This record gives sequence, structure tokens and C-alpha cells, in this order.
Amino acid sequence: MNAEKIPDIIIGRLPIYLRALQRMAENGKQTTSSQELGEIIGISAAQIRKDVSQFGEFGKQGTGYSIPFLIERLQVILKVNRVWDMIIVGMGDMGHALARYNGFGDRGFHVTMLFDNDPKKIGQVVDDRKIFGMDGMTEKIKENEIKVAILAVPASVAQTVADQLVKAGIKSILNYAPLHLNVPKDVHVQHIDPATHLQRMTYYL
Amino acid sequence: MNAEKIPDIIIGRLPIYLRALQRMAENGKQTTSSQELGEIIGISAAQIRKDVSQFGEFGKQGTGYSIPFLIERLQVILKVNRVWDMIIVGMGDMGHALARYNGFGDRGFHVTMLFDNDPKKIGQVVDDRKIFGMDGMTEKIKENEIKVAILAVPASVAQTVADQLVKAGIKSILNYAPLHLNVPKDVHVQHIDPATHLQRMTYYL
Repeated sequence: MNAEKIPDIIIGRLPIYLRALQRMAENGKQTTSSQELGEIIGISAAQIRKDVSQFGEFGKQGTGYSIPFLIERLQVILKVNRVWDMIIVGMGDMGHALARYNGFGDRGFHVTMLFDNDPKKIGQVVDDRKIFGMDGMTEKIKENEIKVAILAVPASVAQTVADQLVKAGIKSILNYAPLHLNVPKDVHVQHIDPATHLQRMTYYL
Repeated sequence: MNAEKIPDIIIGRLPIYLRALQRMAENGKQTTSSQELGEIIGISAAQIRKDVSQFGEFGKQGTGYSIPFLIERLQVILKVNRVWDMIIVGMGDMGHALARYNGFGDRGFHVTMLFDNDPKKIGQVVDDRKIFGMDGMTEKIKENEIKVAILAVPASVAQTVADQLVKAGIKSILNYAPLHLNVPKDVHVQHIDPATHLQRMTYYL
């Protein structure tokens, strides 16, 4: 398996496969097929077979995929067979909601620190974690070797804060601000954009 | 153009194209190429040309795409050349953040009503909109012929509330609860799942 060779568009589908497989496993299922998986997530069986084959032999013709085995392999490929410490910057409504979100734990992420600039918020505790001011943020990120950040600040300051995060060594930013961030090539940004998801559905109305 | 023939996987990419084109237009750009667009959004130029060609002739060889023309066509295809009234159900941190989110207006959506079950929240006003109780929700959805809902309730009640929405006539649900919703075939659900986006980036760490 050569990591350099896997196109980003395939990488983008793997977490979706992983989520569906984990759901099946929770329901006690042991095996699945590309047809079944495809129906659940709305991707063609042929596409799934093609994607999965990039990483080696996962199933035998006719017997389908072993769910636990495929989960394990996908976790290794996506590097979520470990837990990544993660910070949240911006403790408005969205930051609070994310700090309390219970969907990270079993997916490879742990929120360790919260940051905000507002003196009224600094020192408050959300789910046992204190909100820190942003003055010492760079040092805290470096000391703890944090690579993953959620950015939930207002759009007006998002680029400035993103620049700070990049300088501190952050390599993955999940951006909730409604704007495009400019970052160096070795930093990855994913944009959570509810309007894009909504537009995907209006087509069918 | 036959709507029945466009695969869902292509439909899913169109809002991403639209967002990138709108960003370019805001910056005063008039034309672009599949290469340029592809580099911005991380999709191959060949894929973009193939997707766009499904909807007719958009560019001439060598001169590229007209950005305003492509925006208009994509808006028509995705049915966001109008504004869809939308409700938010569940006014916790996430619901509040979404009610105040300023990224819907120019993308085809308008939040008209807010709902929650908590007597302490009912009657509160968020950005000029009153929070209604969920008792009269079905009637309000029907009266106003609302088709689009954002679901931001706790996972424990999300399926029950989704069932209510479906009965009331909602056809598109943007689901923020960390669980899979079972809905009839004619109802579309998009799941906002931050862990999936994060897992797409850890691959590169």
C-alpha cells in the first residue's frame, strides 16, 4: 500500500464506509457486501469494490466482506486506530455544542482544550474542560503537540486565527466559519457547510 | 436535461462547484477552467468536465466556463434559484448556532421557525424568531408548506422527531444528531458528521 498513490477523492469516501460499517457492527452484523453497503450510503457497489481493492484483498467472491476486518483496515489507513488530541477554538454556541458532542470518542478524537478570546468566557468550564484565553494558545498547542483543531470563531477573525493555528503546528483544521481559509499545502482544511448539504437535497424537491 | 438520469453522486458534487464559483464571482472573476476549479476544490479537471457536460454545453474549448452562466445553471438544477423556508428543531447550543448562522441567506434558504420541547425555551426569541413548542409543530409545518428541516435534537429523541417531521410533510432533513435516521424513500437526509470530516484529514498526518 503506497499512501502517495491513493487519490484524495477515494480517501474522502473511506470515512463514510467506516461509519456505515461501524453502525453494522454495533447491530451485531459480521459480514456485508458491496451491494448492501452501497445501498446504505448511496454509492454504487462497483465504486465501493474499486475503492476497497486499492488497499488489498478484503473479501472473497461470493462471501462478502468481513466487517470487523474491514473496519480495522480502514482505521489503520485513516490513522484513527489511535486517539488524536484536538482543540476547539471559539466557544460560542457552536463551540459549546462541539465541546459537548458525544460522537468523537469512538471515532478517533478527543477534545483536550478549549480556547476563546472573550474575557467573560475564559476560565469557564465546559464538560470538565476549562476555557483558556488565546494569548497562550500557540505555546499550549506546541507543548502538547496538538495537530488537529476545530475552528468555530466568527468569519471575521477566522483567517487570522487559522494563521495562528498553522504557525503553532496544527495540520488539520475543521472549519465551521462560513468562509474559505488560505493555508499552506501541508495543512488540510475541511469545511462544515450546512448550505452545501441542503442544496444536495433541494434537487429532489 | 432529464432529472431522473443524474446520479446522486454527481448531484452531491454540484453544490461544491456552486460554492467555489460563487466565491470566484465575489472576487470579481468572470471565467474559469475545469483545471482551476479542480485545484480549488480537490476534484480532477476530467471529473468536473464530465459532471458539467451532463447538463449541456457550458464552455468552449480553450475559453473556459463563464462563471455567472454556470452559477445560474447550477442554481436552476439544484433548485436554489429560489428561497426555501426552513425550520430548526431543537434549540440547544447547535440549534442556536444554526439560527444565528449567516451562511444560508444567499444560498437558497431562510430559517422561518424554531422549535423546542423545553418549557424554559419556548417563547424565547432568537434573532427575531420566537421558539415554538413542538405540540403544534405538525400543523405549522403543514400550514406553511415547509419542506426543509434542520434536526438538532439529542440523539435519544432524533428518530421520534424525524418521524413527526416526515408525517408533517418534510422532505429534506439536515441531521446534526449523531445517529442514522430511518425515513421513507422520498425523504432525503444529509448527516452533518464532524468525525467523518476529521477522519478524512488524519490520513495525511
